[in-house]
Amino acid sequence: MRFTQLLIPTTKETPNDATLASHIYLIRGGFIQSVGGSGLYNFLPLGKKVLDKVEKVVKEELDRAGCQEVSLSFVTPSSLWEESGRFEKYGKELLRFKDRKDNDFVLGPTHEEMMVNLVRQTVKSYKQLPLNLYQINLKFRDEIRPRFGLMRGREFLMKDGYSFHISEEDMKREFDLMEETYKKIFTRLGLEFRVVEADSGAIGGSGSKEFMVLADSGEDTIVVCDSCEYGANIEAAVRQPKICDVAAPEAKFAKFNTPNVKTIEALSEFFKVDPYYLVKTVAKRALYDEGESKIVLFALRGSDELQEVKACNAVDANDLVDVSEEELAEVGLIAGFMGPTTVPEGITVVYDNELKDAASMICGANEKDYHLVGNNFVGIEANFDDLVAVQEGDVCTCCGGSLRYTKGIEAGHIFQLGTRYSEPLGCVFLDENGKSVPMVMGTYGIGVSRLLAAIIEQNHDDNGCIWTKESAPFDLYILVSNIKDEEQLALGEKLYEAMKAKGVDVIIDDRKDRFGAKMKDCELLGIPHAVVIGKNLADGKVEFLTRKEMLKEEVPAEDILSVLEERL
Amino acid sequence: MRFTQLLIPTTKETPNDATLASHIYLIRGGFIQSVGGSGLYNFLPLGKKVLDKVEKVVKEELDRAGCQEVSLSFVTPSSLWEESGRFEKYGKELLRFKDRKDNDFVLGPTHEEMMVNLVRQTVKSYKQLPLNLYQINLKFRDEIRPRFGLMRGREFLMKDGYSFHISEEDMKREFDLMEETYKKIFTRLGLEFRVVEADSGAIGGSGSKEFMVLADSGEDTIVVCDSCEYGANIEAAVRQPKICDVAAPEAKFAKFNTPNVKTIEALSEFFKVDPYYLVKTVAKRALYDEGESKIVLFALRGSDELQEVKACNAVDANDLVDVSEEELAEVGLIAGFMGPTTVPEGITVVYDNELKDAASMICGANEKDYHLVGNNFVGIEANFDDLVAVQEGDVCTCCGGSLRYTKGIEAGHIFQLGTRYSEPLGCVFLDENGKSVPMVMGTYGIGVSRLLAAIIEQNHDDNGCIWTKESAPFDLYILVSNIKDEEQLALGEKLYEAMKAKGVDVIIDDRKDRFGAKMKDCELLGIPHAVVIGKNLADGKVEFLTRKEMLKEEVPAEDILSVLEERL
Repeated sequence: MRFTQLLIPTTKETPNDATLASHIYLIRGGFIQSVGGSGLYNFLPLGKKVLDKVEKVVKEELDRAGCQEVSLSFVTPSSLWEESGRFEKYGKELLRFKDRKDNDFVLGPTHEEMMVNLVRQTVKSYKQLPLNLYQINLKFRDEIRPRFGLMRGREFLMKDGYSFHISEEDMKREFDLMEETYKKIFTRLGLEFRVVEADSGAIGGSGSKEFMVLADSGEDTIVVCDSCEYGANIEAAVRQPKICDVAAPEAKFAKFNTPNVKTIEALSEFFKVDPYYLVKTVAKRALYDEGESKIVLFALRGSDELQEVKACNAVDANDLVDVSEEELAEVGLIAGFMGPTTVPEGITVVYDNELKDAASMICGANEKDYHLVGNNFVGIEANFDDLVAVQEGDVCTCCGGSLRYTKGIEAGHIFQLGTRYSEPLGCVFLDENGKSVPMVMGTYGIGVSRLLAAIIEQNHDDNGCIWTKESAPFDLYILVSNIKDEEQLALGEKLYEAMKAKGVDVIIDDRKDRFGAKMKDCELLGIPHAVVIGKNLADGKVEFLTRKEMLKEEVPAEDILSVLEERL
Repeated sequence: MRFTQLLIPTTKETPNDATLASHIYLIRGGFIQSVGGSGLYNFLPLGKKVLDKVEKVVKEELDRAGCQEVSLSFVTPSSLWEESGRFEKYGKELLRFKDRKDNDFVLGPTHEEMMVNLVRQTVKSYKQLPLNLYQINLKFRDEIRPRFGLMRGREFLMKDGYSFHISEEDMKREFDLMEETYKKIFTRLGLEFRVVEADSGAIGGSGSKEFMVLADSGEDTIVVCDSCEYGANIEAAVRQPKICDVAAPEAKFAKFNTPNVKTIEALSEFFKVDPYYLVKTVAKRALYDEGESKIVLFALRGSDELQEVKACNAVDANDLVDVSEEELAEVGLIAGFMGPTTVPEGITVVYDNELKDAASMICGANEKDYHLVGNNFVGIEANFDDLVAVQEGDVCTCCGGSLRYTKGIEAGHIFQLGTRYSEPLGCVFLDENGKSVPMVMGTYGIGVSRLLAAIIEQNHDDNGCIWTKESAPFDLYILVSNIKDEEQLALGEKLYEAMKAKGVDVIIDDRKDRFGAKMKDCELLGIPHAVVIGKNLADGKVEFLTRKEMLKEEVPAEDILSVLEERL
């Protein structure tokens, strides 16, 4: 295509609200345009072209894996959300409205209910299963703080797939197939990514994995192993139990006066013991449906940190919030002197798994200025769960390697849903014995428009975008430096026609503009390869440019066609 | 693809609310599914496949014509609609809502404002024009009575394009190009259609044409010429002035007592004259913005009928409504005795163009029981306009042929918009002299999801759908009658693989089901061609079926592959 016939409004100006490279370059390159600065975006011709290319890769791999594409109504009746119980629960991100007849609708932020409704009306027998249906369609989430361009917009393009099975086992087979399929998709898109274990809290279900595009600007901290493939979201990361080089303090069970010794640090100092042998007791208020709440104590080693999402899941709460000293006092707890063993009645206690075999531990006595020493938790009857936040340097459970933090952008997420939706919505099938059974489900998402941002976050430099091969709006950029120079233009046109004939997606920069401005745009747009036809053509030379490394190769003009044929 | 691996929930049941063939067959064939019966539809795998095929044809022809695809946010800020003045005017079809921050938005029913906003931010100079931008995207119109399946849904898929020009002349060039492009699209889709002149009232602008798919069930009456290509919407149809074989009555101007003679019929009887020589005077209340209204008299020949849309346009009103006898009396008009010549002060009169040269006319005297005879309108100073509804048998202005009515489904609409939106929204460019000028616009729409219904309305029989070549979900249906018969299955699989290898889009019906049920589905789904492999294979014979005429040809099994290669 010809630059002069395309709307590519490149600009030097960085948008006010943009801090991320992808946000800046997608706008500066004329790929997208903000609509009133409220998390809504228009895709301009080049942005739409990239979106189509990404969508094509997603669709091809899904179809190859046997998934079937459908397209569900974006406007969805609230009644379905009431059936699943999410109409109330989903919160303000769910955009609700009434139509002219005063009926309630929502703009689908995700389509579990709609897809279950589709399937419960059309599938009756085990013979029709399994089934994996997906769509690539608009979603709307009324984010409180839309930001970072396509990374966290309100209206966005998503691939959402849902699978339906006769058994947990078959669902897990499909889950694994989707993991492989997603790996193919992200690999074809040229992305460096990790598949990480994820928390599957809110949406429900038993297992989930996220596909994290690695980028320094990622919003998510992920834990990866240096030696093996292990990766997990910080909320789901696990480690081998910590061990301590320092020997345990020897002490019989006793109550000790510890005046004003309130922190782990102070306690470690006071008793001269490693924090590993201290119990850190964290109080939180756990929130439940219909305004219910309770205070919970989470106990873990003093050398560890509480991971709040794990803690929240351990007590099946909707959320955890901090508790003030006054609130604690009301239920008989004293900040700085709390412990898990002698709690007032009605207070729930959860111990971290790593305290299961702990002995010689020191904890608060739930009495002002007192701690208990010589606590032994081996074999006690209590509520144990995984509560710790994995730290850098912890040991990988898979291979014994060293874990470290890195940053990622969530670009895909696959869930084992089980019967979380099929049960309340009555999405059942008749099994081989004629018995009615709820279908077992999986769900699989890819943030398609977000992928454009993720690609650029991972692939850019100070001059602009660096699109990967399968995401690039064009394969080749032909820059004719001076279109009034007949020789330059003739060569440009010749290459343009030859490349088009070969099926190469090519753009020719045929603008009447300065060389410098064109070169800047060429870099900003980030097409993988370019041919620069400039002054040196007089000496029979042109330049072949590889955007990624900004590698410039001087090529004799007579050879450029064969170089292009070889390299593209 | 394999029938057993696809979700194709065919059913014998006709949906309760369905009367149109397309509504019935698209649901019965498992192409679409109603969502709560409120004008919202899911596209199931086959429906999505047809949608994609139709979309592909639309996109290919538009791209070939130099249009550029974009994708605009579906959720759009109300502020843009306030700028154009349509936020109030659009009525209840415009779905309005507030987001969590109490800002006003609408779900785009059409995107003039959004596209103008896109262009005013990115185009500054005449050098960047012309520009034709389109999208194929969701729209929502909160219809008061959604019905007829995809024909009049609330959420639907539309191609909406908008062009921007430096002059009226250039816009008209593009308008013509779009007319040609749309003709190519509808022709490729295998549709019988007419391009008709249309009223361009509500959306504004100076000229518009509709693309009508001819079908008996069409909601629109269109006027077509039997001898030439002329076609027009009933609201926009014109004819050669009517002539009358009967001579004009001879009479001097005089007032006649006509007691209780109130209708054209009675008057014709009373005076023994042809209704051609009577003036029909129709009173309407014309409604304007902000509650303004006025009574208007429309005068036309007694042999003609008033075309209300033409009448409404003639007085630039938002709408016309009937007036009661009491209301008429209040302003001094008497039902049955109204006439255009002697009206009370403040009453607007519009004459039909065909009264311009009329003489010897009889009209009401605006006095009870009196008419005036011998009226002569030649050369009078008055407000003339085209007011008549063209009748069957009227004479074509293009060729003198005979006009007749037919029914059509509006599938496309192209408008010359002028500066209706660019002016209020300040979408200007600098011309060659550096002067800031509003862009001249055109707008072009195709109801993409509606096209699925239109195709079936025009192409079906009592047994189901008959898809056209480029819209069909598959090119070929291979029906294996008894999949337990090894010979049948082997031939089916062989043909299936051979056709796939040739790039034919083929489905094999590999269900364990009765032949009769499969044959019914084969007809219902309406794939253009089928191979039926049944009992006769034992005698070396199979059947080649052409869906359109239900033509069944017996073919030797050994020849079927070459027949398919020849025919598909």
